[in-house]
Amino acid sequence: MIKNYLMTPGPTPVPERIALSMAQPIMHHRTKEFKALFYETIELLKQLFQTKNDIVIFSSSGTGAMEASITNLLSEGDEAIAVSSGKFGERWAELMRAYNIVPVVIDVEYGERVYCRQIKEAMAKHPNVKALFIQATETSTGVYHPIDKIGLMLKDMYPNVAFVVDGITTIGAMDVKTDEWNIDIMITGSQKALMLPPGLSILSVSEKAKKMMEQSNISKYYFNILGELNADAGHFTPPVTLVLGLRESLKMIFEEGLENVFARHALLAKATRLGVEALGLKVLAKSPTNSLTAVKAPEGVDSADIINLMKTYGVHISNGQGSLKGKIFRIAHLGYFDKMDVVISISALEMALKKLGMNANFGKGVEKVMETFVE
Amino acid sequence: MIKNYLMTPGPTPVPERIALSMAQPIMHHRTKEFKALFYETIELLKQLFQTKNDIVIFSSSGTGAMEASITNLLSEGDEAIAVSSGKFGERWAELMRAYNIVPVVIDVEYGERVYCRQIKEAMAKHPNVKALFIQATETSTGVYHPIDKIGLMLKDMYPNVAFVVDGITTIGAMDVKTDEWNIDIMITGSQKALMLPPGLSILSVSEKAKKMMEQSNISKYYFNILGELNADAGHFTPPVTLVLGLRESLKMIFEEGLENVFARHALLAKATRLGVEALGLKVLAKSPTNSLTAVKAPEGVDSADIINLMKTYGVHISNGQGSLKGKIFRIAHLGYFDKMDVVISISALEMALKKLGMNANFGKGVEKVMETFVE
Repeated sequence: MIKNYLMTPGPTPVPERIALSMAQPIMHHRTKEFKALFYETIELLKQLFQTKNDIVIFSSSGTGAMEASITNLLSEGDEAIAVSSGKFGERWAELMRAYNIVPVVIDVEYGERVYCRQIKEAMAKHPNVKALFIQATETSTGVYHPIDKIGLMLKDMYPNVAFVVDGITTIGAMDVKTDEWNIDIMITGSQKALMLPPGLSILSVSEKAKKMMEQSNISKYYFNILGELNADAGHFTPPVTLVLGLRESLKMIFEEGLENVFARHALLAKATRLGVEALGLKVLAKSPTNSLTAVKAPEGVDSADIINLMKTYGVHISNGQGSLKGKIFRIAHLGYFDKMDVVISISALEMALKKLGMNANFGKGVEKVMETFVE
Repeated sequence: MIKNYLMTPGPTPVPERIALSMAQPIMHHRTKEFKALFYETIELLKQLFQTKNDIVIFSSSGTGAMEASITNLLSEGDEAIAVSSGKFGERWAELMRAYNIVPVVIDVEYGERVYCRQIKEAMAKHPNVKALFIQATETSTGVYHPIDKIGLMLKDMYPNVAFVVDGITTIGAMDVKTDEWNIDIMITGSQKALMLPPGLSILSVSEKAKKMMEQSNISKYYFNILGELNADAGHFTPPVTLVLGLRESLKMIFEEGLENVFARHALLAKATRLGVEALGLKVLAKSPTNSLTAVKAPEGVDSADIINLMKTYGVHISNGQGSLKGKIFRIAHLGYFDKMDVVISISALEMALKKLGMNANFGKGVEKVMETFVE
């Protein structure tokens, strides 16, 4: 027998309470009951997003909402900034090219965050840019971008530029103030801090974004944001079980309290970082997110070897993606995670390194984690 | 206390066994375990579709696969036939217009099926038509179109025209031979005869369709069929729990045996039709499907009154859609349905009609249902 622990940055574990809520008998979606559930969920999502803006739910993976943000806001030939600091940043430019948008790519080195001055430089060279697309957390590197500063800078200097943030690995883990930070479209997905299976993507839409959408000439049907806003609880058959689970998830989040949820993620992230550093390893991101930690493999070691050895203890973490494959490993702490999950992750990491003959500080990682929690 | 019975044509009830399979702990999608699950499921789907063609699974409602069939097969300005005999047929033309395809609409009266000669007439007037889009079952009217005859006629007379069938309310309920009937794209969704919650759309793609897709100039990213075929178990995060449920559903279907599944649906459909006719009511469709029965409300009665009275017995059926609203009601018998479900539906219908003072044949409906099953 082996007990398994899912420490990957999405999908993340689903709490029993949410799994049970989704095992309820199916309800029809064109009923008062479903509509009440749907709109209650939308109101809770607004609180989570810290927004007064409208919210749309799609039956799709997170990429569906990323696509919708581009195809609804923009028109063919438009220029838009894509901040690209990893696999998911690169997806913005891929999406834009697929829809004949001209991406102005701000290439940020893997592990680095973007700076406002880079955005100002890009804006100076490309004054016709209509929107800026960025991840809050770049899941492939564990970097957190300063979306607060960027949003306020855009509001001040480029008020006509729409600001689109992929918060898929951030919403529900970190304090993101959609309205205060001038975010026109904020995106998330079900399978991260919302503690649900994959299958829902969610976005908020500002009035400014809605006005831009009225001008868009890009063809769309399934991912039509204004169409969804005009529909009553979903234009097409919504994934009723996931919406049931989402309401349960949001109830759990607000029972714990948003501040406490954010503080928990901050503490787990801090303990993870200190734990790996106590083992002599380096965190990839200089501006790390609180939802996962990307760690550089020791010189000369393929991170897959570490990951596979950790798996023998039932602990499942993620490799790097693209050119980072083999060079880093990624430990998640977002959603249904508590202190003992960090103890487990760092413990498995210690044993894996020991087996590779590389853990001179054996025991110090877990010790540091515990110390962080005791303080 | 009221016990509820969901008799709507999608979503349909989820068997306990499938609900439990989906309550398993989340697995990561980039693992050997998930890939094994995914490809096992694809092979079972091929058996269900009766095809050797490739299969693609999208995380979306069924409309997502309808959109994909259009945007992947065709190019802007192309002409395509849309057989339109109800709400879902009308969606083909809506989708085509959204993507600058020119729909050649064959308008079929609600409740009627299309005839091959109508298609030949349309083809004669529009020889440049690239594809024909149709529902197997038009869910809004309960009509079953002769997709076998149409497929064979196209193969014989118009071999270059792609044949796309929306089998969302048909696959898993009726004997559909994708390859034998020359169907280039066959579509289904999770929330019908597959006995799952909504959230998956599925389609098969012939070699001919793939060749056409290489020529398509329509922008797409999320719903890129060739992209999905090149990806290893899903380009984007697949809905892992629904795929788990899908495998369980397919296991159940093949344990029962495809022939038996089809015979069960045929019997339940026959009993339902005979039951309503024994009450003096008329079935809307002259060529009825086996997955649901659309029934005309008695002259001068709003079908909502019948539906609401049935609800007081816990029995949930559907109203008509669009211009049929208030004029018909629809009773489902697809997916996780057995004989007693028909007894329940017709019984609730009898009691509702009685309360409306309109059931001169009180008892005769249920009697006819039982008689059909005893025979």
